[in-house]
Amino acid sequence: MVSRGRPRDMQVDERVLRIAAALMLERGYAGLSIDEVAEQAGAAKTTLYRRWPTKDHLAVAVVARLQADDEIADTGDIRADLVNYLEKIAAGLNRMRAAGHRQGPSAGTVGELVAAAARHEDIGRLTREQYAERNALALALIERARVRGELRADLDAEALFDQMAGALYYRVMITGAPVDRAYAERLVSSALEGNLTCH
Amino acid sequence: MVSRGRPRDMQVDERVLRIAAALMLERGYAGLSIDEVAEQAGAAKTTLYRRWPTKDHLAVAVVARLQADDEIADTGDIRADLVNYLEKIAAGLNRMRAAGHRQGPSAGTVGELVAAAARHEDIGRLTREQYAERNALALALIERARVRGELRADLDAEALFDQMAGALYYRVMITGAPVDRAYAERLVSSALEGNLTCH
Repeated sequence: MVSRGRPRDMQVDERVLRIAAALMLERGYAGLSIDEVAEQAGAAKTTLYRRWPTKDHLAVAVVARLQADDEIADTGDIRADLVNYLEKIAAGLNRMRAAGHRQGPSAGTVGELVAAAARHEDIGRLTREQYAERNALALALIERARVRGELRADLDAEALFDQMAGALYYRVMITGAPVDRAYAERLVSSALEGNLTCH
Repeated sequence: MVSRGRPRDMQVDERVLRIAAALMLERGYAGLSIDEVAEQAGAAKTTLYRRWPTKDHLAVAVVARLQADDEIADTGDIRADLVNYLEKIAAGLNRMRAAGHRQGPSAGTVGELVAAAARHEDIGRLTREQYAERNALALALIERARVRGELRADLDAEALFDQMAGALYYRVMITGAPVDRAYAERLVSSALEGNLTCH
C-alpha cells in the first residue's frame, strides 16, 4: 500500500536542484546545462526536461530554493527588523550577481532571471507568485509595527516595502552600485524618517 | 575641404535607430532582427554589425534614444517635480513593457535589456554610464530643494532617489504590479513624509 514513487521523485528533485545550484554558482548562468546536471545527478535527461522544460525553468527553481531561507524576524523593533531583512535580500542578490565568480557591477545571473521571467509566461507567473508570497510576510511585519504604534497609522505599506526592496534591485540590475548592510541602514533611515524639513 | 562622411553616417544611424525602435515596439525584443532593420533602412548589413555587433547592442541603443526625452523640470516645488519625473520614467517602462503588444504584468523588453546589460560587459558599462548621467540630474534637483529648505538638510539624496526610481523598476521587473501617476504620487508621499509615528 505504500507508494514509493513520490518520495523517490522528491529525492531526485532535491539532488538535481542541489547540483544545479552548485553548478550555477560556480559557473554562472551561461555555464548551467540541463544535460550536465542530469549526468551528475545520475538521472535521465528526459526526467529533468519533463520537470524543467528549459534551462530558464531549472535556474528559476534553483533561485527559489536559495531564497527560501530568507526568513523575517519580528523582534518588535521595526527599524532593526527591516535592516536585517534587507541585508538578507542584499546578500541573496550579491550571491546571484557573483555566480560564475563574476566581479564588478554587472547584475550577472539576476539579470538572466529577470529575462527568463519576462520571456516565459509560466516562469513569470511562478516568479510573481513567489514574490507575492514572500512580500506578504514583509507587509505583515510592517502592519504589526503600525498597529503597535511604531509606524504611522496612515502609512502605505506597499509603497514603503517597494521602496526599500526596489532600491536594492535597482542598484543590482540598473546602476551597478553595491548593496550591503550599510546601504540597507541608509534605506531604512530615509524611508522611515522621511525627507521633508522638520517643522 | 568639407567631409561629408560623418554627417551621412549619422543620418544612417538615425534612420536605423528609428526603424529599429518601430520594429521593437511593434514586435517586441524577439521580433527585432538586425538583418531586417538593415533591409528596411537600405543599408549594408556589415555597416550595422560594425556599429552594433549584436541585437542586444542595437536594442540598448534604441532604448537610450527613446529615454533621451525624459527631461526633468525644476519648478521649485519638489513634490510636484518628483511626481512628474517618476511618471515619465513609469511611462517609458510601460512602453518597453508593452513592446510587441504584450499585455499583462510581464516585464517584457525591460527584462531583456537588463539581461543584455548583464551578459555583455560593454553594454553593461554603457548602460550604467547612461543611468549615472541621467540620475545626476535627478540628484541635482533634490540637492536644489535641500538648499532652498524644502527638504531636510541632512538627507541622503542617493538613497531617496534609488527608493523612488527603484520601486518603479521593482514593480515592472519583479512583482508585475502597475506603475502610473497614482503610484508615483504614493511613492513621493511615502518617501518625503516618512513612515514613523509623528511626535
